[in-house]
Amino acid sequence: MKIVLDAMGSDNYPVPDVEGAVLAARDAGEDEEIILVGDRDRIEAELSKHAIDGLPLSVTHASTVIEMTDRPARAVRSRPDSSMVVGMDIVRSGAADAFVSAGNTGGALAAALFRLGRIRGIRRPGLATLFPLPTGPVVILDIGANADCRPEYLYQFALMGSAYAESAMEKTRPTVATLSNGEEPGKGSWLVRKAFELLQESPLNFIGNVEPKEFVAGEADVVVTDGFTGNVVVKTAEAVSKMLTTLLRDELMSSPLTAVGGLLAKPAFGRVKRQLDPFRVGGAVLLGVRGVVIVGHGRSNEVAIKNAVRQARVAVRGGLVAAIEQGLAAYDVKREGSS
Amino acid sequence: MKIVLDAMGSDNYPVPDVEGAVLAARDAGEDEEIILVGDRDRIEAELSKHAIDGLPLSVTHASTVIEMTDRPARAVRSRPDSSMVVGMDIVRSGAADAFVSAGNTGGALAAALFRLGRIRGIRRPGLATLFPLPTGPVVILDIGANADCRPEYLYQFALMGSAYAESAMEKTRPTVATLSNGEEPGKGSWLVRKAFELLQESPLNFIGNVEPKEFVAGEADVVVTDGFTGNVVVKTAEAVSKMLTTLLRDELMSSPLTAVGGLLAKPAFGRVKRQLDPFRVGGAVLLGVRGVVIVGHGRSNEVAIKNAVRQARVAVRGGLVAAIEQGLAAYDVKREGSS
Repeated sequence: MKIVLDAMGSDNYPVPDVEGAVLAARDAGEDEEIILVGDRDRIEAELSKHAIDGLPLSVTHASTVIEMTDRPARAVRSRPDSSMVVGMDIVRSGAADAFVSAGNTGGALAAALFRLGRIRGIRRPGLATLFPLPTGPVVILDIGANADCRPEYLYQFALMGSAYAESAMEKTRPTVATLSNGEEPGKGSWLVRKAFELLQESPLNFIGNVEPKEFVAGEADVVVTDGFTGNVVVKTAEAVSKMLTTLLRDELMSSPLTAVGGLLAKPAFGRVKRQLDPFRVGGAVLLGVRGVVIVGHGRSNEVAIKNAVRQARVAVRGGLVAAIEQGLAAYDVKREGSS
Repeated sequence: MKIVLDAMGSDNYPVPDVEGAVLAARDAGEDEEIILVGDRDRIEAELSKHAIDGLPLSVTHASTVIEMTDRPARAVRSRPDSSMVVGMDIVRSGAADAFVSAGNTGGALAAALFRLGRIRGIRRPGLATLFPLPTGPVVILDIGANADCRPEYLYQFALMGSAYAESAMEKTRPTVATLSNGEEPGKGSWLVRKAFELLQESPLNFIGNVEPKEFVAGEADVVVTDGFTGNVVVKTAEAVSKMLTTLLRDELMSSPLTAVGGLLAKPAFGRVKRQLDPFRVGGAVLLGVRGVVIVGHGRSNEVAIKNAVRQARVAVRGGLVAAIEQGLAAYDVKREGSS
């Protein structure tokens, strides 16, 4: 198995990216290799800081970079020599099985769409994240690839999320739910109500609507929504967590007694933080393209990069792309007149 | 000024409802009266437990109740003798200025629509909540009255939210933003992008898109979204706050040392809780109907009821309905061909 890692991805590229690759290479099984793509000189300078003798690492040169501030589709079209496009082409050629980057999410999406293409029958690839919860990570998608959706897209997100949970997370018949503003059937926007009908008729393990409370309680393995709502919900969860933590820290430090309390309580805070750490579970996964594509957060450190590579490895081993193809073949949803 | 209070609203009606009315009556200015509507015997039994001599309280009998589990529109149509419909009719007749209930939200919406009617020119009334934040409450709407929206509805939500912030929250030229998945103009769903265009041309103090991070930081006074997204976002914020607090409490109690720390830190936790307490700011307000309508949470205690009555009083004093009418007159948005 070969995994391409975009060495020019993270906000501090190539430092955490290269170190993450080294850590991942130390974990690699037999017959596994990590291909670092990016500026060869800078990558080799970073590699020279680590003990890499005998590690399954190679470097492929790419002369330009798609930066965080670039407009994704335009950058991908105009920079075929960028680390993202060069890396994606290695997967396209069959010389590697997965692509991992902590770079521009839109860029990775565009590069995957233009270079790898969609799985036959998939209307819109969806971006899924593993939302960290005390009960374990929950797959939620779409979190931003498609702001406007049709019911069939949501049905396919459910199918792909289910295939991911089954092939890469060892869930048997994962439970799938639509995110809604009420649990009862018939609740939700037009989009949710129509998707609900499609999912009820499908062979998926569909458990109906979940409200945010049930989502956060981990009551479904896979939660399906449009890319606008998904993006806003995930960002709201992050923003509220951060606001609460900051507020609590400030209030703790506002008196000596509560500050002592906060100090004694620190291990508990640490355990909570670890349980909800998004970097532990890896990156977001783009489902519906012809290859395994993982997009990490720009703020990724070397451990987050290592975990994203591990996530790619597990998805390749689990046969993610084939699982989606089989899911599609098993149930051909009606096409709403267009395709 | 007269304010109708549905005595049969909260989950534990009429106990907290009546006690809340008593507390509110003690705060009442001259020429103010609270009209309790519901089962006269039960209300008077509750009133007899309090010192109410000389308080501006009266009781109007209503023989039935719209319960939390009732289907709103059907219940409102079939139960004209319910406390909600009887209470709303007092406002409709001009004998009172505002209606407050901690009951079935859908029921209050339906009763307001059927009995009070919309303000002339308003396409869809919107339900707004005062989202409690460390920087003070932010108005967010729609949080559930309209799951499917058109751009003009969002424009009118902005107008009504702005009128509320100005007339009932003492904000001068309140800032208004659309909730979106990115800050740049052009980000968002089709709905958000079209509403953005309408708002840019309007006389409102429109500051563009906010992401959840900026919303939570209090960067806009009024945040506008469709009722599906708004409902899910507010519920996500509540669910994440609760999950974090519970998790932290459990982790604190898991070792004696952190438990001691938690005990010492308790005042800080209390201060955080108070800052984010939704009951302090009152209930949700239904904007766009011909009267002031406040809907409190079913779990409201007597203090939450008192605060909801105060919120109604402030909105009546500020001339909320007239402010919305003036806002509409000042800028006649294009009608997208239908009205």
